[in-house]
Amino acid sequence: MSEPGTDVLVLNSGSSSIKYVLFRRKDFAVRARGVVERIGESAPRHRHRVGDDPDDAHPVAAANHHDALALIVAALQTDGVRADSLAAVGHRVVHGGEAFSAPTLIDDGVLRTIRELGALAPLHNPANADGIEVARRCFPGVPHVAVFDTAFHATLPPQAFRYAVPERFYAEHAVRRYGFHGTSHQYVARETARRLGRAEADVNLVSLHLGNGASACAVRGGRSVDTSMGLTPLAGLVMGTRPGDIDPGVLLHLATTAGLGVKELERILNHESGLKGLCGASDMREVLRLRAAGDPAADLAVRLFCYRAAKQVGAYCAVLGRLDALVFTAGIGENQAEVRAEICEHLGGLGVRIDLALNQRPETHPAGIQAKDSRVAVMVVATREEVEIARQALARVMGAGDGPAGAR
Amino acid sequence: MSEPGTDVLVLNSGSSSIKYVLFRRKDFAVRARGVVERIGESAPRHRHRVGDDPDDAHPVAAANHHDALALIVAALQTDGVRADSLAAVGHRVVHGGEAFSAPTLIDDGVLRTIRELGALAPLHNPANADGIEVARRCFPGVPHVAVFDTAFHATLPPQAFRYAVPERFYAEHAVRRYGFHGTSHQYVARETARRLGRAEADVNLVSLHLGNGASACAVRGGRSVDTSMGLTPLAGLVMGTRPGDIDPGVLLHLATTAGLGVKELERILNHESGLKGLCGASDMREVLRLRAAGDPAADLAVRLFCYRAAKQVGAYCAVLGRLDALVFTAGIGENQAEVRAEICEHLGGLGVRIDLALNQRPETHPAGIQAKDSRVAVMVVATREEVEIARQALARVMGAGDGPAGAR
Repeated sequence: MSEPGTDVLVLNSGSSSIKYVLFRRKDFAVRARGVVERIGESAPRHRHRVGDDPDDAHPVAAANHHDALALIVAALQTDGVRADSLAAVGHRVVHGGEAFSAPTLIDDGVLRTIRELGALAPLHNPANADGIEVARRCFPGVPHVAVFDTAFHATLPPQAFRYAVPERFYAEHAVRRYGFHGTSHQYVARETARRLGRAEADVNLVSLHLGNGASACAVRGGRSVDTSMGLTPLAGLVMGTRPGDIDPGVLLHLATTAGLGVKELERILNHESGLKGLCGASDMREVLRLRAAGDPAADLAVRLFCYRAAKQVGAYCAVLGRLDALVFTAGIGENQAEVRAEICEHLGGLGVRIDLALNQRPETHPAGIQAKDSRVAVMVVATREEVEIARQALARVMGAGDGPAGAR
Repeated sequence: MSEPGTDVLVLNSGSSSIKYVLFRRKDFAVRARGVVERIGESAPRHRHRVGDDPDDAHPVAAANHHDALALIVAALQTDGVRADSLAAVGHRVVHGGEAFSAPTLIDDGVLRTIRELGALAPLHNPANADGIEVARRCFPGVPHVAVFDTAFHATLPPQAFRYAVPERFYAEHAVRRYGFHGTSHQYVARETARRLGRAEADVNLVSLHLGNGASACAVRGGRSVDTSMGLTPLAGLVMGTRPGDIDPGVLLHLATTAGLGVKELERILNHESGLKGLCGASDMREVLRLRAAGDPAADLAVRLFCYRAAKQVGAYCAVLGRLDALVFTAGIGENQAEVRAEICEHLGGLGVRIDLALNQRPETHPAGIQAKDSRVAVMVVATREEVEIARQALARVMGAGDGPAGAR
């Protein structure tokens, strides 16, 4: 290419969906976004939105990822987007294992490795790879960049990423903590430093990404030094349908006394645990409604969720030594003042105090919702993983030094 | 009995050993102590010591717990101890489940329940019950009291003891956090308050029981409010041969990719993990020697051990709000200054500072090894689980109000 394109396309391919956002390169304004859902299932549909227009949702025929991407390309072309207007396609990839610690230009070898890492993320990497494969065929002349959910955590020291299990499990089966939500934690860490008016290198923070999946990350000087998810996204905080940390003996006990097999345990721990296991509802909005209506199981679910998040923050105070900021992000973190308040209530002894009025309307207080006597800034930052993927993909393509590849 | 006996016998029956200590009732002075080891195995032997005499160890015939206890009774009789001189026999029992939250007088029903709880502690409760059974036959006229490793943690609130797994696992399979080492944590908490010259009710502390097994306990006002072991003694801190907390996904991954079955995983997590899994040695003294000799695996093992302990203390700072004392106990906690120093190094941000010279000789500083500018007292307390068992058994028998039964 003589001239880089004017746009960046971000693709997030799941097993039955492809989400996409088209950004304008110069300012990351959203030109269009959408999703093709239920690919290969009954009644697939395509939702597409241009700029601030309302959603356009309609049924489509999409038997596979190739069909779905063709629909997306067609929709974008209608909006005047052509392959030669793309500077890069950024692909979200869940697991980079120990192979990838930075955004990576995709060639056949990289794609093969992403597929092989499916052993560590069987629900995600194969679908990510499928999406990459069809996208490379649709946009053959455009650089494709893989941005990994694990990459931000490549800076974890061994004491944080190793488990106390036989060394051969690490050497032969890649058993270690990888962590996820890295793109979100990285965006949030940079944005927090910006709002504090300080260099990233000078800020120690804990980022709480609380969505349907949830994880905490200890960030020292812009680098992840510990995080709560592990080899898999089951570990750490309580989630919508996942348990977070549990005694490994629980699995052995259930296998023995309840006769549960590996597949059944896998299903239960991925889809039937967390908030759902405790009170029947996995969506925190619903759980809070149930609690407000007097449901004791929902009350316990919220208390457990908040207590466990607070303990994780406490643990990271030990890791970081000095805590400058506590940051809430993702669906629950951005929108549930009740949950933020309850987590922070546990943290008074660690110098965290919020202003309950500011906490109700954090969007009007980008500089933080902490009380005046708080030793720690408390931020609510809307995560923008797609922007971060676009930014990192573009930085990789342009050879700019502000991506993680350059930073390390 | 018209007059209570003058002594208390404490028995700790394992699957292949019975340990015992005979205390004088009035001041808990040790009259005799010993162990019959390798019961039912090749070359059983009996070590017995009276007062401050040297150990007397000799081979014996002990095919079962009955044989072993007969040997113990004979040795005690030689020292002038008869059944009618016993005020109580205190039995250490590992798992009390939700059935027992205090020292309990043993009758047939209690013994049956202890056996049934073998489902939660298959390696321990059946052996504990065997020991109780033979001891009741040997000392039929004496009250026998079960003192449970889990009982001190009966005060955990639901947010600390429940896991985020389907509610039916709690209701039907008793899946919850129980915690262990309760007798040790309880002794240490009381002793710490005494040394601080404060009422137990006024002290918030974290107790680190670091032995071959290891656990942390958050104690508020004399009550356990959280602890690091869980349903089983696998969870929490890194141990000699156990991993402590790991992503539950690790077990699923190893079952799938390495083809490990439940029995094999159970063996590996109980006997091949922890320090041993990381560096080949399970005894911290040996691990520290290897580290000093430049072994990088041993160095990692120590760093992981200390880092994880520090994170647990940080988490409990959030739980307790205010931390008055950090207490080290058990083999490693009492004897390894290097480990204490390394754990405390992580905790400077939480107000913990030790005096490195005092740390080298803590036995000469019962009031603590903290530095002058430390916000938290740092104690080294030699745990005396047998004394605590004797004290609780006696309190139960005498109906005194200073045992947990009275306290709750």
